[in-house]
Amino acid sequence: MVSIEPLGYVRSEFDEDKGDRNEGQAVLELNPRYSEALDGIEEYSHIIVIFWMHKLDIKLRTILKIRPRGREDAPLVGVLATRGKIRPNPIGLSVVELVERRGNLIKVKGLDAYDGSPILDIKPYDYYDVKEGVRVPEWWLKISRKGQSRCC
Amino acid sequence: MVSIEPLGYVRSEFDEDKGDRNEGQAVLELNPRYSEALDGIEEYSHIIVIFWMHKLDIKLRTILKIRPRGREDAPLVGVLATRGKIRPNPIGLSVVELVERRGNLIKVKGLDAYDGSPILDIKPYDYYDVKEGVRVPEWWLKISRKGQSRCC
Repeated sequence: MVSIEPLGYVRSEFDEDKGDRNEGQAVLELNPRYSEALDGIEEYSHIIVIFWMHKLDIKLRTILKIRPRGREDAPLVGVLATRGKIRPNPIGLSVVELVERRGNLIKVKGLDAYDGSPILDIKPYDYYDVKEGVRVPEWWLKISRKGQSRCC
Repeated sequence: MVSIEPLGYVRSEFDEDKGDRNEGQAVLELNPRYSEALDGIEEYSHIIVIFWMHKLDIKLRTILKIRPRGREDAPLVGVLATRGKIRPNPIGLSVVELVERRGNLIKVKGLDAYDGSPILDIKPYDYYDVKEGVRVPEWWLKISRKGQSRCC
């Protein structure tokens, strides 16, 4: 078992009743003892936030297959083949825009984490994270807004 | 405190004495009870592996600032502004090529995780992870092979 002490918590107006994607801003509030550990992060345009999806009902963690977003027109696939909340370890990952950093606070845009989510790690996003020739399943292209705009 | 039961372990020839980047292949060996949870992941070209850097000396976790890769020509920056091992929570993240999946085993290419690393989560990489207009610090461009090939 791996035990992780959160670096801080997400402060956001985004919550369970607000849909799938957060286009708004949120604040990552780190424990003040980590302020110095953030020095220089403001030079990146994007960061990766790894958080704990603390609101997921523990019973849902045993589910192995789902239809992505509950869509009837999507196939039944393994939970680890999706980016959904339902998974054995409810770890969330978002690549977000870094808006501003002040001391132990980072304002970001596009974070799909509910208010109060424990922050496990923060990493800068760099060129190694930008992959070329990315292939995704047909169902992904069908049900994602981004898939629709790239295809057809 | 967040407690996480690993999904499985990394099997790799990559280890502490093998440098910074692994260009070779590795196998993600998940607990067989998660085999079904992987169904459909083979339709993606890339996946994100979130792992625990189990070999990091616990004393190094209190360090707040470092010179990236120990380079004298890099500035002293906060550990959370780097992708290095030294950080409060030694969570590793690699975007890797998916080579093959068989049951509970996934063969990947480019995983910077040492042999035996506990796997915390696996996520498919999709178009939302490909960001445009990415900005990184000057020092990153200077010390990274990828930075050198894009700039100057």
